[in-house]
Amino acid sequence: MESAHASLPQSDPTIKTSLIHLKDNAPTWFAELQTQICSMLETIEDEMGHPTRLPARFDFKPWKRNDPTQPNNDGGGGTIGLMEGGAVFEKAGVNISTVHGEFSKEFHKEIPGTETDPTFWASGLSLVIHPTNPFVPAIHMNTRHIVTTKAWFGGGIDLTPTFLFDEDTNDFHKAMRDVCDAYNPDAYAKYKLWCDDYFFLPHRNEARGIGGIFFDYINSGDINADFSFLKAVGTAFIDIYAKLVRRRMHQEWNMDDKYKQLIKRGRYAEFNLLYDRGTRFGLMTNGNTDAILMSLPPVAAWS
Amino acid sequence: MESAHASLPQSDPTIKTSLIHLKDNAPTWFAELQTQICSMLETIEDEMGHPTRLPARFDFKPWKRNDPTQPNNDGGGGTIGLMEGGAVFEKAGVNISTVHGEFSKEFHKEIPGTETDPTFWASGLSLVIHPTNPFVPAIHMNTRHIVTTKAWFGGGIDLTPTFLFDEDTNDFHKAMRDVCDAYNPDAYAKYKLWCDDYFFLPHRNEARGIGGIFFDYINSGDINADFSFLKAVGTAFIDIYAKLVRRRMHQEWNMDDKYKQLIKRGRYAEFNLLYDRGTRFGLMTNGNTDAILMSLPPVAAWS
Repeated sequence: MESAHASLPQSDPTIKTSLIHLKDNAPTWFAELQTQICSMLETIEDEMGHPTRLPARFDFKPWKRNDPTQPNNDGGGGTIGLMEGGAVFEKAGVNISTVHGEFSKEFHKEIPGTETDPTFWASGLSLVIHPTNPFVPAIHMNTRHIVTTKAWFGGGIDLTPTFLFDEDTNDFHKAMRDVCDAYNPDAYAKYKLWCDDYFFLPHRNEARGIGGIFFDYINSGDINADFSFLKAVGTAFIDIYAKLVRRRMHQEWNMDDKYKQLIKRGRYAEFNLLYDRGTRFGLMTNGNTDAILMSLPPVAAWS
Repeated sequence: MESAHASLPQSDPTIKTSLIHLKDNAPTWFAELQTQICSMLETIEDEMGHPTRLPARFDFKPWKRNDPTQPNNDGGGGTIGLMEGGAVFEKAGVNISTVHGEFSKEFHKEIPGTETDPTFWASGLSLVIHPTNPFVPAIHMNTRHIVTTKAWFGGGIDLTPTFLFDEDTNDFHKAMRDVCDAYNPDAYAKYKLWCDDYFFLPHRNEARGIGGIFFDYINSGDINADFSFLKAVGTAFIDIYAKLVRRRMHQEWNMDDKYKQLIKRGRYAEFNLLYDRGTRFGLMTNGNTDAILMSLPPVAAWS
């Protein structure tokens, strides 16, 4: 997908003006989205209840990013949102961050727009949810806005069920299609394929899950339309995931079902540690390890 | 440690003659070592016993390596030895393989002696043991003989306890020192440091375990002495690990202890998938995925 870089427009004064606007608005939106998502997940915990204890709740932990290239070492930071041991959500990590600084030379080839100027600014929300019930699918979502001498949006949503239900698969893909179609009639086919390509484990010759959408380097020239699409992806996530969870969370399961879920989670850990760009990139650039590895399952198994 | 390549002698007729001899003897020894190790582990399962079922046993599964550069696609193969769900050993994988073929160009920089001739031959034994009892340490051993236009031995043993006991730590390091001292008075200091350097997780700023020994590119000019050292490492493994397991396997443990072991195993999986040369190299070169990922824990956790 490297060729997709070519479609990014070179920066110009108009884009710069829009960016100044978004550098406030994007982080504000990601924080609002984090609140909405965590609220939705806590509401579902309330609905499920628990025979012996209070419903699980999110814990929020802020962190700072040190960057020696910046005044006062201030490279931005983020907030880790983590709920563990829920009746519905065994582990849900919903993180936001807004960071800035300079890329080291080894990343110039990988990050568009850093060839002549290494400075970057990035803001985003990233989440991974590992449910307790093996019949409730795991999910991952990421939405981000990145600015170098170029500017673009990226993100995606993908679903990882342990057991396949046609109804869930169809509803999920339809929700992804709807949000893309409202943005651009060509978007869905492209972003779906990109997702299938990306979330694949070559050494297992298997997909991580059932896919969804994945997009990067989005800059149509209309930054407001692009940002609205990013917001719509976040909202679509809330709607479809709440629906799928409520449909499956009361379904009875046994230890065989659970073990199959743990094996599926082992594959999930393999993908994230072996292939995921964000994970490897973050760890190799002294990112916040706790935030980056939030995606790993609470428990996983290998047979 | 790339500079260590420089110490390898260029191939000459004398070495070639020795190699022909070793191409039979090394695989024979690795097969014998596999038998001895599995026998030791099964004996310990017998000693421990189980209240409701027969002691766990190894299952052996041969596999073939396809290599289109070779006559009849015959790139060698190996045997996976796996024991699971034991009273003492939750998962023990003891693999041998003898493979040959041609490296693709992208590995010429990484593998000494392939600059002008891509053919290779490699034979070895690799094991990882994840015990049931959190007080029994996990262990990894690898011994291998590799031939390109150069020839060398490599391998090592390292221990990963969840709970530290000075007695175990001291006995283990002493065993490693003894086997090295009998080979070369300078070996232990070098191989211990190499091990500490290698089994380290930079993103956690922590060691995978307590270290041990790690060596590669060994070719002193006396191929028989080098091979004897490799054999001594295998024998030392059997003696010290049997001793440590028998010392701890009856120690009582609770679910908190077990959870700490699962967290430690999560770090183990992180290391193997993010950094381990053998794992990444094997997966990127279409190795046998089951054999390569045998090292992953049966169950692991992330908090």
